[in-house]
Amino acid sequence: GGWPNGERGPVNAGPVSAGPVSAGPVSAGLAGVYCALVTPLDGSGALDDAGLERLADRVVRGGVAGVCPAGSTGEGMRLSAEQRISLLRRVRALVPPGLTVIPSPSSTHPPATAEEIWAFAGEGADAVLVAPPASYRLADDDLFRFYDTLAEQSPLPIVMYHIPDLMGVGVPAKVAARLAGHPRIIGLKDSSRQFEYTEEVLYATAGTGFSVLTGSDTMLVATLLHGGTGAIAASANLVPDLGCAVYRAAARQDWEEAGRLQERLFHVVAAVRQAGGAAPGWKAALGLAGVCSPQPAPPAGPVTGPALDRLRERLAELEVLPAGTPAG
Amino acid sequence: GGWPNGERGPVNAGPVSAGPVSAGPVSAGLAGVYCALVTPLDGSGALDDAGLERLADRVVRGGVAGVCPAGSTGEGMRLSAEQRISLLRRVRALVPPGLTVIPSPSSTHPPATAEEIWAFAGEGADAVLVAPPASYRLADDDLFRFYDTLAEQSPLPIVMYHIPDLMGVGVPAKVAARLAGHPRIIGLKDSSRQFEYTEEVLYATAGTGFSVLTGSDTMLVATLLHGGTGAIAASANLVPDLGCAVYRAAARQDWEEAGRLQERLFHVVAAVRQAGGAAPGWKAALGLAGVCSPQPAPPAGPVTGPALDRLRERLAELEVLPAGTPAG
Amino acid sequence: GGWPNGERGPVNAGPVSAGPVSAGPVSAGLAGVYCALVTPLDGSGALDDAGLERLADRVVRGGVAGVCPAGSTGEGMRLSAEQRISLLRRVRALVPPGLTVIPSPSSTHPPATAEEIWAFAGEGADAVLVAPPASYRLADDDLFRFYDTLAEQSPLPIVMYHIPDLMGVGVPAKVAARLAGHPRIIGLKDSSRQFEYTEEVLYATAGTGFSVLTGSDTMLVATLLHGGTGAIAASANLVPDLGCAVYRAAARQDWEEAGRLQERLFHVVAAVRQAGGAAPGWKAALGLAGVCSPQPAPPAGPVTGPALDRLRERLAELEVLPAGTPAG
Amino acid sequence: GGWPNGERGPVNAGPVSAGPVSAGPVSAGLAGVYCALVTPLDGSGALDDAGLERLADRVVRGGVAGVCPAGSTGEGMRLSAEQRISLLRRVRALVPPGLTVIPSPSSTHPPATAEEIWAFAGEGADAVLVAPPASYRLADDDLFRFYDTLAEQSPLPIVMYHIPDLMGVGVPAKVAARLAGHPRIIGLKDSSRQFEYTEEVLYATAGTGFSVLTGSDTMLVATLLHGGTGAIAASANLVPDLGCAVYRAAARQDWEEAGRLQERLFHVVAAVRQAGGAAPGWKAALGLAGVCSPQPAPPAGPVTGPALDRLRERLAELEVLPAGTPAG
Repeated sequence: GGWPNGERGPVNAGPVSAGPVSAGPVSAGLAGVYCALVTPLDGSGALDDAGLERLADRVVRGGVAGVCPAGSTGEGMRLSAEQRISLLRRVRALVPPGLTVIPSPSSTHPPATAEEIWAFAGEGADAVLVAPPASYRLADDDLFRFYDTLAEQSPLPIVMYHIPDLMGVGVPAKVAARLAGHPRIIGLKDSSRQFEYTEEVLYATAGTGFSVLTGSDTMLVATLLHGGTGAIAASANLVPDLGCAVYRAAARQDWEEAGRLQERLFHVVAAVRQAGGAAPGWKAALGLAGVCSPQPAPPAGPVTGPALDRLRERLAELEVLPAGTPAG
Repeated sequence: GGWPNGERGPVNAGPVSAGPVSAGPVSAGLAGVYCALVTPLDGSGALDDAGLERLADRVVRGGVAGVCPAGSTGEGMRLSAEQRISLLRRVRALVPPGLTVIPSPSSTHPPATAEEIWAFAGEGADAVLVAPPASYRLADDDLFRFYDTLAEQSPLPIVMYHIPDLMGVGVPAKVAARLAGHPRIIGLKDSSRQFEYTEEVLYATAGTGFSVLTGSDTMLVATLLHGGTGAIAASANLVPDLGCAVYRAAARQDWEEAGRLQERLFHVVAAVRQAGGAAPGWKAALGLAGVCSPQPAPPAGPVTGPALDRLRERLAELEVLPAGTPAG
Repeated sequence: GGWPNGERGPVNAGPVSAGPVSAGPVSAGLAGVYCALVTPLDGSGALDDAGLERLADRVVRGGVAGVCPAGSTGEGMRLSAEQRISLLRRVRALVPPGLTVIPSPSSTHPPATAEEIWAFAGEGADAVLVAPPASYRLADDDLFRFYDTLAEQSPLPIVMYHIPDLMGVGVPAKVAARLAGHPRIIGLKDSSRQFEYTEEVLYATAGTGFSVLTGSDTMLVATLLHGGTGAIAASANLVPDLGCAVYRAAARQDWEEAGRLQERLFHVVAAVRQAGGAAPGWKAALGLAGVCSPQPAPPAGPVTGPALDRLRERLAELEVLPAGTPAG
Repeated sequence: GGWPNGERGPVNAGPVSAGPVSAGPVSAGLAGVYCALVTPLDGSGALDDAGLERLADRVVRGGVAGVCPAGSTGEGMRLSAEQRISLLRRVRALVPPGLTVIPSPSSTHPPATAEEIWAFAGEGADAVLVAPPASYRLADDDLFRFYDTLAEQSPLPIVMYHIPDLMGVGVPAKVAARLAGHPRIIGLKDSSRQFEYTEEVLYATAGTGFSVLTGSDTMLVATLLHGGTGAIAASANLVPDLGCAVYRAAARQDWEEAGRLQERLFHVVAAVRQAGGAAPGWKAALGLAGVCSPQPAPPAGPVTGPALDRLRERLAELEVLPAGTPAG
């Protein structure tokens, strides 16, 4: 199995691995479904360690290729650098040694980002997922220099993170293509929800071993069909088996089955978005499922009231929760 | 061939016809690539009849399932109702009797829209493509009533047109799903460039015989894979054979070939968008190809100067134009 | 009194007339508060003539400098050209001969716009308010040519209408400044709600006799202070005396009083916006006040339910409605 | 002079002080023009101390009421917490003791924000300017709790910072009004460029002693006329005397003069925006004026080439630079 040396054609003439979803060394590229891990917290904002243990167990058993702690779904920006590092240490200990772990630094001061990556390397990270520093607009050349400089200093491979609505600045496809040539810049996560952007990056980097992963669980099949190699998926906290099943179906070119599963995944994502989306929404669902506390990082508050009720009903209809899940 | 009784599953277990792309009666649903026909005009804004003849010939020989005159690419809003009707008459005469012709009315006064549809019916239209009336926002119920009332009065099947950026008002997926039950509302064209919207409409109308066509040539493969049945494509003015080849490859489940062709189509669209997009961009390309005048409808002016030069170079690189195409 | 020959300085060294608000010939420029007249309709979409009579009476007695029928608040796009012309005829007959009447044509086909202006001239219009044709983007030169060509053909002075969110295309300040030199282009209505745009147009046209009117009743004082000469105001349907009082206070340089009245006007506008804004909101308020039917032009529906209840309460608090206004 | 006990009426019945612009204790409210200080840096990203000295001297002599280091114009997000604190220490030493100094913390981790405020207090800050933590959306109640909790812990008065385009989250007027009741939340800086928002906050907090300052130098006169008490202005780095002159003219109710000066200020801001705006633009202008290095904080690069040439020309035309300023 495994994504053989990260190569892909213009479309997926087998772009995805057909065996059990395994991580393999990141030097061979990223392939499969990675979990954009939420950070279980208690009411005081401290790590909910028991919740994290249950969550890691659920996610690993779901078959993911790796986990990505402290990213946008992980509310990394709401944690201190120390918390992000101790979270990584805990996650690394909770998942099997072969599973890829890709944490995110979270600073708007570039030297601090470089330092944080070194600390991650010391805790066993396999790669890092790095967004451009929020929120001032950056010229293309400045953005290029940011990633290029970081890659020169980094002990770990870098995955670029394109999430323009959240960070106020994204990674234009042309800049991504220039950076794809750097040996320590191995891929890009696209959370823009703009499929034409996904295509543009895929076409501009085709044949280079550069991995394009979607951050939109709703576009997993479309991304795989066009040459992407997987996802970093928030849904993999709640229904890790579902995204992994999409990936395996695509890997064996069973697009009909992949599409059927994609529809189901779409409805799960839609239900959580309606409840608020992002960390609060996924944590609300995980709270209903008994995995961890529904508490997002302060100052955000948990999903409550009618929005929570609707979420419970919808997840029961979708059989993500057992039919008789108690009300809160 | 043909899309048998408009049925489709959640994904394309053969969602598209495998034989030669043929239109068939629209009552069996819409399937294939339809050309969002530009309206060739001379410098005074009058119809360039010789250009239209060459264009129709090119498009028909390219294998399209039908043509859609006076839509957004056809600058229908910049023509008078009389011009739209005489354009339809001319187009109907220029294309084979079996080819589907789907013109668009263009009024912001609903009774005039209803009248125009009757006039279209008298000129041999097979269906009509109708956007919500620009530009005031409409509540969902009001939008539902607009289409429902129109369908009651219409002698022709209606295809809804979702192009929110242009019209200021779109067709929410939930409203589309309610309207899909009406026997004279047979489909929807999605030009939002939001693939999640495409999915939402596809999932909400699956199994009803309702046809979802993309207006984004760049998302043709993704749309077909998820259950859409084709496109109403501006690129079919310039490279009709390319979109049709995508469709045929998808119809025979050859997704690798479909993806390869999609990449080529993506680059053609990107080149035209860079030159200005929409009618002026496509007309500039058609002008370079010697098909018709590059003149958009007044008050818009033609693409000129460096933008035109870049377009010529790019289309030559893409082998859409012969290498030695003269400069202007 | 009167805005002497349309001149104004960089700021309002008396930019507004101190006497009773009078219209004067438009050749001397526009000054004062003009009513962006709603179009009273009955349930079938036909003109509610009795409602129009009551409305015109209310507006005229409120002291406005003129009325602008069939504009965006007047739902001109939802009427046929014939209806717009017969509406103008009726309005012209209902208001005193000295009051300025400025209707809007509403076509996306430029030759039809020119024709409609001639028809308006035949019905006694003093000027016309013309937005760029919706909705395709226009290059600056194309937009310039649109207005310049129209002005050459027009028997009436033209006021440009900048409302980019509604029309999809606005009038960049630099284009407005170029057009301000044309003797038949006498002013601009700014409904962008972007005060920096208002300033840019004011500064770019200062000293030319060009009239800048705001379409944002909430920015009337700010506009007058910076050199604007008035407003075309939707609020003048409901509370014509309030906007006129703002104008008179500004005219006599009593900015404290102008500001006090502006605050009140702000709250009236905010209440109507919360109920839905634009024509449906103002018509709902006029319906509550017993002036005319609350019915907007089809396919839009009237404000009802809790939104209408909140509007009634808020307008009673603001003493726009008597305290005991019956519920619907 | 001074803004007597922070009171203001619905409009400026003398909302601004008529004497020399003086800061006074912040407990009496904020009034006047405060400089949104840029952070002079050398090519390595280290503090350009000589440049800071020249800048502070220029700004103080220009008559500002205070300085705001490490805000958005100060690129606070691009500095480490240590750099922000040492910058404050240096600024405090460079300006006269009576001048108000209001630094900004810059963390997305709320406990770090609270800590940074304590460190600022230890370095002589008079108040702090705090934006909501970027970039996740926050419900109104969560945002309220963020500021309320911070105010409970803070040794310094807090000015809220509304700059939604940069931070991805703003301070809705209703939330601001609820927080205005807290004794340690003394004001709000509005950098939204939405004048209706400014009005909404002003009206919702009128009569409470809460200070509303604009961050849009272009809307200084409009803000003062409607009851605002000043600005935190980036232009005060380059032309501190100009904003202060606007303020003094408004304070003595000379709106004609205020407007004339506003126009000049508008053109300076427009010239800098065209060169790139924000820190890079203002630093480019200061570099041309010989005040400090044009280098923005990494990874941003300086304004160069034709954009810099246009800026030099425009500033010379506006007499901000001497006519013969050498090219680069």
